Amino acid sequence: MKNEDLKTNRPIGFEKVQIDDAFWAPRIETNLKVTLPLEYELCKSTGRIDAWRWKPGAPNEPHVFWDSDVAKWVEAAAYSLVKEANPELERLIDEYVDMMAEAQDENGYLNSHFLRVEPDKKWTNLHADHELYCAGHLMEAAVAYNNATGKRKFLDLICGFANLICEEFGSEPEKKQGYPGHPEIELALVKLYSATGERKYLELSRFFLLNRGTTPNYFKAELKSLNKEIPYSGFKYLQAHKPLLDQEAAEGHAVRALYLYTGMAEVAAETGDQGLADACRRLWLNVTTKRMHVTGGVGPSPTGEMFTFDYDLPNETAYAETCAAIALIFFARAMLTLEDAASYADIMERSLYNGVLSGVGLDGKHFFYANPLAASPQMNEFLPENRKTTRQEWFGCSCCPPNIARILASLGGYAYFEDQSGLTVNLYIALSAEFAVAGTKGILEVETNYPWDGDVRMTMGLPKSANFALKLRLPEWCDSPSLEVNGAIIDLQTHTTNGYACVNREWKDGDIARLIMPMKAKLMVAHPSVRQDTGRVAIQRGPLVYCLEETDNGPELERIIIPSDATFAETALDDLPSEVVALKCDAFREIQTDWDDKLYRDIRKVNNERRKTTVTAIPYHLWSNRKPGEMIVFARKTNSNACPHK
Amino acid sequence: MKNEDLKTNRPIGFEKVQIDDAFWAPRIETNLKVTLPLEYELCKSTGRIDAWRWKPGAPNEPHVFWDSDVAKWVEAAAYSLVKEANPELERLIDEYVDMMAEAQDENGYLNSHFLRVEPDKKWTNLHADHELYCAGHLMEAAVAYNNATGKRKFLDLICGFANLICEEFGSEPEKKQGYPGHPEIELALVKLYSATGERKYLELSRFFLLNRGTTPNYFKAELKSLNKEIPYSGFKYLQAHKPLLDQEAAEGHAVRALYLYTGMAEVAAETGDQGLADACRRLWLNVTTKRMHVTGGVGPSPTGEMFTFDYDLPNETAYAETCAAIALIFFARAMLTLEDAASYADIMERSLYNGVLSGVGLDGKHFFYANPLAASPQMNEFLPENRKTTRQEWFGCSCCPPNIARILASLGGYAYFEDQSGLTVNLYIALSAEFAVAGTKGILEVETNYPWDGDVRMTMGLPKSANFALKLRLPEWCDSPSLEVNGAIIDLQTHTTNGYACVNREWKDGDIARLIMPMKAKLMVAHPSVRQDTGRVAIQRGPLVYCLEETDNGPELERIIIPSDATFAETALDDLPSEVVALKCDAFREIQTDWDDKLYRDIRKVNNERRKTTVTAIPYHLWSNRKPGEMIVFARKTNSNACPHK
Repeated sequence: MKNEDLKTNRPIGFEKVQIDDAFWAPRIETNLKVTLPLEYELCKSTGRIDAWRWKPGAPNEPHVFWDSDVAKWVEAAAYSLVKEANPELERLIDEYVDMMAEAQDENGYLNSHFLRVEPDKKWTNLHADHELYCAGHLMEAAVAYNNATGKRKFLDLICGFANLICEEFGSEPEKKQGYPGHPEIELALVKLYSATGERKYLELSRFFLLNRGTTPNYFKAELKSLNKEIPYSGFKYLQAHKPLLDQEAAEGHAVRALYLYTGMAEVAAETGDQGLADACRRLWLNVTTKRMHVTGGVGPSPTGEMFTFDYDLPNETAYAETCAAIALIFFARAMLTLEDAASYADIMERSLYNGVLSGVGLDGKHFFYANPLAASPQMNEFLPENRKTTRQEWFGCSCCPPNIARILASLGGYAYFEDQSGLTVNLYIALSAEFAVAGTKGILEVETNYPWDGDVRMTMGLPKSANFALKLRLPEWCDSPSLEVNGAIIDLQTHTTNGYACVNREWKDGDIARLIMPMKAKLMVAHPSVRQDTGRVAIQRGPLVYCLEETDNGPELERIIIPSDATFAETALDDLPSEVVALKCDAFREIQTDWDDKLYRDIRKVNNERRKTTVTAIPYHLWSNRKPGEMIVFARKTNSNACPHK
Repeated sequence: MKNEDLKTNRPIGFEKVQIDDAFWAPRIETNLKVTLPLEYELCKSTGRIDAWRWKPGAPNEPHVFWDSDVAKWVEAAAYSLVKEANPELERLIDEYVDMMAEAQDENGYLNSHFLRVEPDKKWTNLHADHELYCAGHLMEAAVAYNNATGKRKFLDLICGFANLICEEFGSEPEKKQGYPGHPEIELALVKLYSATGERKYLELSRFFLLNRGTTPNYFKAELKSLNKEIPYSGFKYLQAHKPLLDQEAAEGHAVRALYLYTGMAEVAAETGDQGLADACRRLWLNVTTKRMHVTGGVGPSPTGEMFTFDYDLPNETAYAETCAAIALIFFARAMLTLEDAASYADIMERSLYNGVLSGVGLDGKHFFYANPLAASPQMNEFLPENRKTTRQEWFGCSCCPPNIARILASLGGYAYFEDQSGLTVNLYIALSAEFAVAGTKGILEVETNYPWDGDVRMTMGLPKSANFALKLRLPEWCDSPSLEVNGAIIDLQTHTTNGYACVNREWKDGDIARLIMPMKAKLMVAHPSVRQDTGRVAIQRGPLVYCLEETDNGPELERIIIPSDATFAETALDDLPSEVVALKCDAFREIQTDWDDKLYRDIRKVNNERRKTTVTAIPYHLWSNRKPGEMIVFARKTNSNACPHK
């Protein structure tokens, strides 16, 4: 029944990739040793773990989205078990599975809130509640746990629930024509289909996608039956304002949108549905060329955690939820299975190294929910917990922390793709990866100090020689990459396709490909229609976007002006890990002398002086790991290079 | 019992002032003929008028703040009756008063929500509900209606309610030690005291002020008894975080804060309480030198309609509620009664001509609740009704429209003050004002085309000559005012005190004082710590702050750069009233040619050209009266005047 050959490209699973990387390995280790135990404790102490046994009157009434928080933790923990056995961790998961099994309805139904709190409200509030969303996360967790341990209990019980959902929902007239208010199950059903071979799961996913936003609108009828008003934004918030195939722009709640598009891309890849694939491409282009922060963060509006309109990319109020950046990476990976184009991986890299990684502190214990591009610490008092300018331990709605945990625990699964013709390298991480192309199994050993430098040495481990293509992403940020194979220079002019350097040859054991991507810090400007960034520059070096922090540069960062022709010196800072490349450049600081107690003054009476200063920038993902203070990504720039008063 | 002589200065009532002014008269006429009837209709159709007769199960359940909306309308209507008899309007008010009288409890209690909806919840939820706030607005309305018509029914029934409140609240142990969550009654009680001479009303106001924020905190106990959490911002939102006399900065909900400070200043003036007066000065300085938009708008944060921190003055997200700007004018007027300093009136003028007047459209039918300093029309879809970028007819919480109506209907009452020594002119409006100083009654006739020009001719009408001071505010915006009396130049160097030109002489009938305040458009910069305005300028001419609108300047206003040494030509625009002085200046527009579909680009690869353009600015208060579009107050500026590439 499976039809994987319609996919252009398949990711190599993280279980085949051993990461041994100076940048990522400590993060992954902290994730395993600090984050995962902490998140379990928080799920436990807040009542999430024991939600299945909750009784009316007890504290910690299960919330509609709690199952998903634990499910993401289980998924992350399962990934970690693949890498390192941990009987105690396995026991905790087994206990959780046992509780679910006890609580599960005879018909297969499984959701702690609707089993324990509102048993008569099942499937009545799809637009607002997270019933199908939680189901999806449980499916992902069950597949991951089965893959990690071979144990079937969780997978079997989740298949029971999936079978019930297949009976309840579908195009047949006797079934509900509904779909989730918070998409996620669409992509999870594809995973469940891959794990089980049950094509009805794929069909259900396709039904959820294609029925979404059709007329008559299911949510409209549902709201009517609940005696509720249609929200003033209509159904855009839920991506249900029109059929998915007709949607031109990314609308509404960003995480919902990107999980939905990911599911759509995965169903397109599995089924070869060109209509779905075209819609994916259209929405991808809208997100990444009109609605994405330079950090790869998406969803600018804190109100509704939403997309707004093209080129609306605020800095200080940017929401850019960690989960949305993670979802953009999922979408990118899914698009790569449809289409072998480096531009998808460029965005994946941008989001991963900036807007996702900023979501967790170096300590592995504190998390950002929102990832703004500018911050004033005095605002903290006026911001809700999910928008604080320092990382928090946990959130009432704690979707982001376990989402980070699962992406870090499975990071190797985003780097490599294989297809009939060869092996594609999308992320540059020091590791060894098993692959199988053209009937040959091999191991690629990668040595690099990426993202601190762009020198990547890849050694083929092959039991026998084989003809295949090695495709290496030439990152968009790199102006002058060069490639050598066994010391011989490859002409990239003639060897580049869709953004990949493509070396099609007979590869032998011990062959070495060395890709050199010179990294020089540069100034980036946003599209001129981004009103929030006019007259401003961001600093980027390799895949890393930089920021200025108060602790290095003093307060009032908006007084700093960076020359449009700034050049940067690379340096280390005492209070950051020694391998971190910080940047320094000459700049100006505006000083107004003789300012009296007035708030507004005639410009002619103001003594505006520009003093030389040195500015220090650090990678954005590291902000707020030291003394809390102001931060900016986009700094003011001089207007011209040509004059001393620029 | 009254002790008015402790006041330095007394405002001359609007009933003694006949406005005949090209700028204000049409606004006042529209207010009378369009706004007042419209607001009555909306109060009627939404159920606010008939709230006193509401019965459970009927539509339009009375909300806790509805009485205040109607009360402000009654107050405005009463002011209009002073100027022009209107039996039909009077009948509508009498009907409303009759309904109140019918509904009033025997003990005097009067609030439609708590009489009709939650009769057993009276006085239980002072922190969140608007019970004492509504009482205050009804007091103001009753005093105004009594002054306008001499009818006592409304005043009597409100005194009955005030007496009940005096019995319920106070420092005696058997009384409630509470105070309103939404201050307003403090200033209203002073009005009621002035109207009736009942000193207990003044004492109650003083009790509410001095008990506020003391330990043990009343709201803390109240929340506990309601089984509610203390809000995460503590009691700052309600100005109850510490005793009022210890408060150093304007905190919390801006309208609440400014009504509270107004009441405090009025009680200080009535009682001579120096401690209250000092607290008022401190809070005034904090608001006006650190927390006020250039438009005189206050309260920058949409979340909680709140003050935030010093120098936090965002543009596009500025809340700057119309009611808060009006409340700042009340506060300024109250401060002028304490202290004869032009700086209070400077702020009153700034707020009135900009942040207040922007609240109502030229049509008198549409209102801004929030008054941002920058707007993108595409944001409209994502903003709630009170933050839309076009004026709305009404709001669920419709405090602003009737607040504007009452200030326009009583505008004359803000212009003139009299004390033992003379007459003070704080606002320049063409009118005739009756005054009484040094035992002499007189009439001041003022001719001017202010704010379009700064030439003001004042003619004394005096039955007999009299020695007194005429004090004329020399506005902060004016660099080179000059004054002639009967053609003789007055040396302002030697005749200026506290910002006033002070001419102390024997004034005769027909004497003419002519104040000339040259008006030239200029660029204003904000304090360098206002991070949102660095590198930016606002345009101001006379008291009017200007803005750029898309309809005059094309879209993408952030591409415009105004030279720091710009000079302005004055002009009229076809689509605005002919007297409006619009401004034009040479400026630049950034054009990026060859921009491809990328969202972020290396600055070295961007062709950034600066083309000459002409920019048109209109008074801020007139924005959004034409085609909806972008608007900005603070535009980008060139960095230096000294170089061609500036």
